[in-house]
Amino acid sequence: MEKQAILHKTKSNYAYAYDAQTLHFRLRSKRDDLTKVTLLIDHEDGWLPNEEGVWMWQKKQLPMRKEFSTELFDYWFVEAKPHNLKSRYGFLLEDEQTQVLFVERGFFSPEDDFIQNDINSYFSFPYIHENDIFTAPSWVKETVWYQIFPERFANGDVTNDPEKTHPWSNATTAILGEFEFYGGDLRGIIQKLPYLADLGISGIYLTPIFKSPTSHKYDTEDYFEIDPHFGTKEDLRELVDKAHQLGIRIMLDAVFNHIGWTSYQFKDAQEKGTASDYYDWFYFEGENYLNFSYHMPKLNTSHPAVIDYLIRVAQYWILEADIDGWRLDVANEVDHQFWKTFRKAVKEVKSDVYICGELWHDSQAWLNGDQFDGVMNYPLAKPIQEWIATERIDGHDFLEQFVHAYTRYPKNQNLGMMTLLDSHDTPRIMTSAQNDPRKVDMCFALLATTPGSICFYYGSEIYLQGEDDPDNRRCMNWEERPTSNLVQLTRLRKAHPTMGYAGDYDFLSVTANTIIFKKVSDNEILYFIFNTQGTNEVILPTEMQDQTFNECIQQQTVTLNKHLIVEEYSYLILKKE
Amino acid sequence: MEKQAILHKTKSNYAYAYDAQTLHFRLRSKRDDLTKVTLLIDHEDGWLPNEEGVWMWQKKQLPMRKEFSTELFDYWFVEAKPHNLKSRYGFLLEDEQTQVLFVERGFFSPEDDFIQNDINSYFSFPYIHENDIFTAPSWVKETVWYQIFPERFANGDVTNDPEKTHPWSNATTAILGEFEFYGGDLRGIIQKLPYLADLGISGIYLTPIFKSPTSHKYDTEDYFEIDPHFGTKEDLRELVDKAHQLGIRIMLDAVFNHIGWTSYQFKDAQEKGTASDYYDWFYFEGENYLNFSYHMPKLNTSHPAVIDYLIRVAQYWILEADIDGWRLDVANEVDHQFWKTFRKAVKEVKSDVYICGELWHDSQAWLNGDQFDGVMNYPLAKPIQEWIATERIDGHDFLEQFVHAYTRYPKNQNLGMMTLLDSHDTPRIMTSAQNDPRKVDMCFALLATTPGSICFYYGSEIYLQGEDDPDNRRCMNWEERPTSNLVQLTRLRKAHPTMGYAGDYDFLSVTANTIIFKKVSDNEILYFIFNTQGTNEVILPTEMQDQTFNECIQQQTVTLNKHLIVEEYSYLILKKE
Repeated sequence: MEKQAILHKTKSNYAYAYDAQTLHFRLRSKRDDLTKVTLLIDHEDGWLPNEEGVWMWQKKQLPMRKEFSTELFDYWFVEAKPHNLKSRYGFLLEDEQTQVLFVERGFFSPEDDFIQNDINSYFSFPYIHENDIFTAPSWVKETVWYQIFPERFANGDVTNDPEKTHPWSNATTAILGEFEFYGGDLRGIIQKLPYLADLGISGIYLTPIFKSPTSHKYDTEDYFEIDPHFGTKEDLRELVDKAHQLGIRIMLDAVFNHIGWTSYQFKDAQEKGTASDYYDWFYFEGENYLNFSYHMPKLNTSHPAVIDYLIRVAQYWILEADIDGWRLDVANEVDHQFWKTFRKAVKEVKSDVYICGELWHDSQAWLNGDQFDGVMNYPLAKPIQEWIATERIDGHDFLEQFVHAYTRYPKNQNLGMMTLLDSHDTPRIMTSAQNDPRKVDMCFALLATTPGSICFYYGSEIYLQGEDDPDNRRCMNWEERPTSNLVQLTRLRKAHPTMGYAGDYDFLSVTANTIIFKKVSDNEILYFIFNTQGTNEVILPTEMQDQTFNECIQQQTVTLNKHLIVEEYSYLILKKE
Repeated sequence: MEKQAILHKTKSNYAYAYDAQTLHFRLRSKRDDLTKVTLLIDHEDGWLPNEEGVWMWQKKQLPMRKEFSTELFDYWFVEAKPHNLKSRYGFLLEDEQTQVLFVERGFFSPEDDFIQNDINSYFSFPYIHENDIFTAPSWVKETVWYQIFPERFANGDVTNDPEKTHPWSNATTAILGEFEFYGGDLRGIIQKLPYLADLGISGIYLTPIFKSPTSHKYDTEDYFEIDPHFGTKEDLRELVDKAHQLGIRIMLDAVFNHIGWTSYQFKDAQEKGTASDYYDWFYFEGENYLNFSYHMPKLNTSHPAVIDYLIRVAQYWILEADIDGWRLDVANEVDHQFWKTFRKAVKEVKSDVYICGELWHDSQAWLNGDQFDGVMNYPLAKPIQEWIATERIDGHDFLEQFVHAYTRYPKNQNLGMMTLLDSHDTPRIMTSAQNDPRKVDMCFALLATTPGSICFYYGSEIYLQGEDDPDNRRCMNWEERPTSNLVQLTRLRKAHPTMGYAGDYDFLSVTANTIIFKKVSDNEILYFIFNTQGTNEVILPTEMQDQTFNECIQQQTVTLNKHLIVEEYSYLILKKE
C-alpha cells in the first residue's frame, strides 16, 4: 500500500460541513492502489464491552465510493450525519493484501486495540455549527454572468462621448490602447438589456465604471462618481432597476488594491509629502511610491482612514444603486483583515450581496466564510480551454487537472464560484480556439456543466475574437446576431439544474479525444459526450447502451446502441427518457 | 518518482509568512525518493528574452534542505524573502533519473516552455501583509506553565472550607469524586507563590475557580463570582499581583461551551420553559436539553444574549483582576464565530492576553490569527509519552509521529502552543511511566525541547502519581521536596532559549531506543541524547566525535569519542564548548 500517497485533512476540502447535519469526507490515494476505503465514525452506541469485557469505542462503518479516478489518483467520498453533530473519525484502507487504519496520528494496524480505542488519535470534526458553514448567496449558483467592458459594449448616448472618440469598430486594426475611446456607456447597456435578457443571462459583471482617465478605468480618480463618459448615477440606478425587472443582477468592479494617480488623495500626497493627510494612504519612500502598475499607486489597506474610505465606497453603491455584487480586483494582494471588514460591512447593508475575488490560484484562504463568497475560478476552466481550444493537453490530462481544481474546494464553495474561460485579462476563447466555432461551443458547453455561476465575456455569443489585452477589448459588433450556443446553454442550465449546480460529476469514459460523463442529481441524470480531434467511433458505457435519450440541444429523441460515431469537435447532451 | 506522495499547499503549514519579509516553504515527499528539491520563485529581473528572443519568466532557484527524514517521508524546507513581497513559485523535483516541475496545477516537464512561463499555473503566495501574520503574545514562547487544580493544591484558609471537608490526603485510597472536598483555595496558592517561583515556572494555569458545586468547577453556577470555598475577588487580585511581582502570569479557565445546572440561567429556563428569558440560551427539546456532560447543559453560543454575557465575563476578569490568559474549555465544540468575537473583545481590553484552546486534534482551523494564540498541544507530547513512558512505540515511530505533529503548524503557531504531557484530563505521566522517575525525567526533558510554552501539572516536581480522572486530582503532597528535573529544566530553558523557542530541530541519529538530535539557533547549538531501554553503546554522529561539551544538567565538561555508553532511561544535554 502506498501510504505516502494517502491524503486527508480535517476542516478542509477533505472534510467539511455541507449543511447543518451533514459532513462530507474525501480521501485521495494513489490510483488503483486501494480496493476499498471505509469511513469509521462515532456510533450512537458509544462504548460497549467486547467478549473479554474490554470497553470498546463503537464506530459506524461507511463505505466510501470512488468519486474520481485520474491518471495519478483515486478520490474517495462519503457523506455522514454525525451522531449529536459531533465526530471523531478514521479510515479503514484496504488493498489485496492488507488492512490499514489511517487516523490523524498516522497509520496503524486495525488489530491495534489501543489505537482502536484512543479517540484522540483519530481525526475530529468536533461539532457542526450552522453559523460556521460556508454559504454563498443562494442565487449565485444559478447565475449566468455576462461580463461587459463598458467602453466597448454599446454607445447609447453620443452626447457624453470623450473628445476624439473613434468611430465604432471591431476591426482587427482598431486602436485599443488604454487612452483610446469608442464611446460605450451605461445608456448603451440599458438599451441592450432586452437583448441580454434574450440571451438568457441572469447577471452582468461590469468592469470599472467610476471616474478615471483610461478606457479600462482600473486607475480610479473618484470612487464616488460614475465616469462622466459612461453616464450618471441616475443612469446606473436605471440600469440596475431595469435589469432587476428582467431578473438580471448587476455586479460592479471594486478596485481597492490601488487607486489612480489622478485621484485627489494621491495628488495631495505627492504634492505635500508627509504634510498631506493622505501621505500614509500610500507606500512612499521619499519620492518613490509602491505602484501596482503604471499610474496605479498601491493603497495601504491597513490604514484606518483608507479602510474607512473604501468601506464607505462599498456600502455607498449598494445603498445608492442597489447593486448585487462586488468583484474585487487584485483581491489577493490586499490583506485578509481588510476583506474581513469589507465582508461584514457590505453584508450589513445587503445580506445577499455577492463578493467575488479576482484570484487566479488556490483561494481556500479567502473562502472560509469570513471573506469571499467565491472567486473567478480560472483554474477550473483552464483544463477545458487547454483540452479543447488550444489542444495543449489530452483528455487524460484534462481529467487530472479538472478534478484537481474541482476537488480543491468543498461543494458549498464550488457553488459560490464564478467560473470563466476568458475575460478582459486573457485572450478571447475564440482566438485561443484558432477561430473554430465548434471548439468554442464545446468549451462553452463544458463550462456550463461546472457548479456555481459561470461567466461569458461580452461578444461570446457572436464568437468575438481578440488576443491578450488590449485586443480582447474590441468593440462589440452589433451587426451580427448571436450564433454561438450561449443561448441554448443558458436555457438548458435553467431547465436542468442538474447540468450546473445540482448535479455531481461521474466520469464514465476518458480517452485522449473523447470524454463521456454524467451529472446526477436526485431528480435526473444527464449524459455528456465531448469529442475533440477526428471523427471517432466510441464504445458507450454499458449503462447508456440500448437506451433512449432526449438530445437536449437539438431537442430530438435518439436511441443509442453499443457504438456511436462522434464527429470532430462535437458534443452531445442527453437526458434519459 | 513517486509523484503521488508529493505534498504542498499554499497558505498553510507548507507555505506561510514567518515575518513581514519572509516566507517559509515546506514540501513533503516519500522518503529517499527525491535527491534534490529546488524552490523556484520570482526573480527581481522579471521577464527577459532568451536566445531565440522569447520572453521568459525569470525565477530564482533556492535549494531546499532536508529538514526531517522519517520512516515514511522526507520533509524539505527553505525560507525566502520575496521580491516586492509578492510571489509565485514552484518546485523543481529531482531523482536519479528525472526532473519534474511541480506547480499548483500539477506535474510537468521542466522543458515545457509554456508552463515555465505560465505564471498562473504556479503556486502563489500573493503578498505578505504584516497584519495577516500569525503572532501569539511574545511572552508565551518563553513560558513554563504550572497547572493547578485549586481544590487539591493547598489549603491556605480553613475558614472557607466546605462542609465535610476531608483531611488533606494524597493516599491512593483518597476519595476523589467531584463532590469530595479537601479545602484547597486561592490563599493556598498565594502562600505557595515563592515555592512556585523557586521551581522556575513563569505561568500558572488554574482550572476553574468560579462559583460551582463541584470540586472541578467545570459546571459553573456564576461566572462573576469566585467560588466562596476558593476565596474572594480580593484574593484573586492579590494572587495575580503577587504572581506578577514574581514574573509569573496567571491563566484562568473559560468554560463557555456549557454552564452548570445550578446556574440561575439554566434553572430559570428549566422552570419557566419558553417563558424564560434564558430558554434560548440552551438547546431544549421539550423537557430535554443538550447536555455536554452530566449537569453541564450546553450553551447556545450563537445566541446574541449568550455571546454578550460570556464576552462580558471574559473582559471582566481581565479588567477586574488583570489576568494574563484564558484557557478555553472544550473549545472545539463552540462555534468559530463565537471565538472570533471573543478574541476581538479580550484583545481590546488587554492586547497581550493569551488565548489557549482545549483542542486534542489538528487545530489549524482555529489558528489563523483570528481565534486562538495556541492550543493545548497534546499531539506533540504524545509520541514522547508513548516512546519513553508507556513504550508503546519505538524511536522510529517517535520520530514519525513527532515530526508529523511538529510540521502540522507554521513555526509562528508552534511558538504559541502550550505543550503538555498530562493534565486533569489524563493519567499523570508518573503513572504512565510505571512510577519510574528516570522515565519521567526523560519525558520532561524532551518536552522542554519543544517550541512554544510547556506545561507541568501540579506535583510533577515530586513525581505525583495518578490514574485517569478523578485519581489525577490527588492532593499535593507538601511533605515532599521537589526531586524531579523540573527545576533544572526551567533554569536551562531560561539560560538557553535554543533549547525551547529559539532552536530548530535537527535529528542526527534515530534507533529504536536511542535518539540523538541537536537544536540550532543563530547563537548556539545544543545536542541531546535520549536513551530508553538497555544500556547501549552508540556511535556518535561525526560532528560530535572528539568534541568537548558542557553537559548542562550536571554542569560538567565532557569530551566525547566515537562511541558512547548511554545508560538505561537516561538523557544528556550538551552544549559545545
